Amino acid sequence: MATIAPSRRVRRTPFSDGVEAAGVKGYTVYNHMLLPTVFRSVVEDYHHLKSAVQVWDVACERQVELRGPDAGRLMQMLTPRDLRGMLPGMCYYVPTVDETGGMLNDPVALMLSDDRYWVSIADSDMLLWVKGIAYAFHLDVIVDEPDVSPLAIQGPKADELAARVFGDGVKDLRFFRYGYFDFQGQQMLVARSGYSKQGGFEIYVEGAENGMPLWNALMEAGKDLDVHAGCPNLIERVEGGLLSYGNDMTRDNTPHECGLGRFCSTQTAIGCVGRDALLRVAKEGPVKQIRAISIEGELPPCDRLWKITAKDKVIGQVTSAAKSPDFNTNVAIGMVRMTHWDEGTQIQVETQDGPRMATVHEEFWI
Amino acid sequence: MATIAPSRRVRRTPFSDGVEAAGVKGYTVYNHMLLPTVFRSVVEDYHHLKSAVQVWDVACERQVELRGPDAGRLMQMLTPRDLRGMLPGMCYYVPTVDETGGMLNDPVALMLSDDRYWVSIADSDMLLWVKGIAYAFHLDVIVDEPDVSPLAIQGPKADELAARVFGDGVKDLRFFRYGYFDFQGQQMLVARSGYSKQGGFEIYVEGAENGMPLWNALMEAGKDLDVHAGCPNLIERVEGGLLSYGNDMTRDNTPHECGLGRFCSTQTAIGCVGRDALLRVAKEGPVKQIRAISIEGELPPCDRLWKITAKDKVIGQVTSAAKSPDFNTNVAIGMVRMTHWDEGTQIQVETQDGPRMATVHEEFWI
Repeated sequence: MATIAPSRRVRRTPFSDGVEAAGVKGYTVYNHMLLPTVFRSVVEDYHHLKSAVQVWDVACERQVELRGPDAGRLMQMLTPRDLRGMLPGMCYYVPTVDETGGMLNDPVALMLSDDRYWVSIADSDMLLWVKGIAYAFHLDVIVDEPDVSPLAIQGPKADELAARVFGDGVKDLRFFRYGYFDFQGQQMLVARSGYSKQGGFEIYVEGAENGMPLWNALMEAGKDLDVHAGCPNLIERVEGGLLSYGNDMTRDNTPHECGLGRFCSTQTAIGCVGRDALLRVAKEGPVKQIRAISIEGELPPCDRLWKITAKDKVIGQVTSAAKSPDFNTNVAIGMVRMTHWDEGTQIQVETQDGPRMATVHEEFWI
Repeated sequence: MATIAPSRRVRRTPFSDGVEAAGVKGYTVYNHMLLPTVFRSVVEDYHHLKSAVQVWDVACERQVELRGPDAGRLMQMLTPRDLRGMLPGMCYYVPTVDETGGMLNDPVALMLSDDRYWVSIADSDMLLWVKGIAYAFHLDVIVDEPDVSPLAIQGPKADELAARVFGDGVKDLRFFRYGYFDFQGQQMLVARSGYSKQGGFEIYVEGAENGMPLWNALMEAGKDLDVHAGCPNLIERVEGGLLSYGNDMTRDNTPHECGLGRFCSTQTAIGCVGRDALLRVAKEGPVKQIRAISIEGELPPCDRLWKITAKDKVIGQVTSAAKSPDFNTNVAIGMVRMTHWDEGTQIQVETQDGPRMATVHEEFWI
């Protein structure tokens, strides 16, 4: 296994000292920043995430801040989701597309006030897209990356841990809502959200200097809950069907192909870039779509597209895969053509180590 | 040292099979793609680069293609460099800035024809910026990332190796010019350019399937030249003062601060984004600028900003550093305030392992 080379360009986070002290063993790079991928082992981390509670350095979920009189107008330009019902205190998952309806990112937007939003991004420089649009349309808005770094608390004991640090009020937060909670005299934005199916919170830490005090407080408060440093877990996210931009969807895909049609109100999302392109696909539906796929046999790491074939014809691709201890199969995410996307369809997946028998499923492992 | 986690999102390149067979030991991620950082050791790679010839997988220098009647107009919008003299066959280094004059990227642009350009980018999703601008200004141009992957030949024996594969004509290429040369019946675009001071070429390989045949042909043809797989070398590039976007310059910096004022013809670059902001700095000059810095003592990896101080006041930052065997000092790149940027100024650099004595230089080690 090759190591990752240190450089300033691959940014450390406000929590990196804690991550290193916890013995991080693997990283990826996400939005030009370090994102841990494994601490003890992917399997050990997986079992622990499902049974206890973890603190995750997800500072790489960088924010694009829109601020000014045109912030709301710009926010609606970025997504086919109808934002008219959005209010301060709410988080919206907002697929973001270009003029052809191709996915540019799949961020979570937070409305802070009428004229201020944070867009918590997946792995592409959405800041540049938003800046380009705002500049060329002469919008009265400032677009920038603030010094805000999310830290996640995930796992079945997340409520208990969060309550110990932020008070019991945090337990009352509904899914994809946020509130402000006191930490050592500061108000911190805490949302009920996160990139796992185990539940939990994301704290949007403002000011890099506030990172380690919060990290340490959570680790200290959670000792008897068996809290550990963790990170988005490949196995758990594939089981749960949590898509990853750049892995399972790219600019080649529409939101509808990614199974995100329910977040698109293309008819009413007036002003959204890509509306024209998406109106037809919204009406007729996509010809290929994301599916859960179980694969037989031993698998190499899914570090490239794996073609899916049926009777020697290419009918899709697998983009993420992992061996699931709990479900006793290889779980995978892929894009499958309409002709083969029904439950139970037998297909073949072409890995770098050879072909594997596989089955299409309509539901993920949840 | 932590390892790098495999995923499709961190893209392999058309040359990855060759890179792995050559025993790559370290990677970074650049434009969502694997970029090798070390093969034998950084020092061994360094000596070899300066004495022989290397083949580099720099596929991560992705291309943004502009194609259509407005391609030329859009190209000039992207940079304060005056492009009126640009002709097919030429490569231009084009600092790219936002509306405030902040650096977004520092690509090399290739003019392919009147209505077609490739922009060979550093590590930011410039595609999104260019697409946003083109869309919002309703320009008649297609902006996309083509299937083009640069492979570099670098080192003092680069001419000899390139000539064996592409014919002697390739030796006549002038610096930052390109031509088309035959490889196994295909015309390949070969430029005299590359991210080292040792000289050489970059081949813009069209079609991923053409990657390994070219890689293998170069390795075979260069056996008696001691050709090795290599990569941009940290020590050599810092000695030579080759800046790295994301390391030595970011959106916080103007081109003038980066010492790139000579590439800015802000007065005549009509239509360039950021022109208003840069006119003043072009006239008055920047208050801080990139400098070569030699640092005493043992250094940790420069994986974060190192503040530069003088009499306890912060007067700059170091952003890249390496121990130079040939110059018997630690060589570094930093940004220094005008008050301390003269040759020979004594300063202090604050590393994560403590302060180090250092000296400012007006010239790099070339």
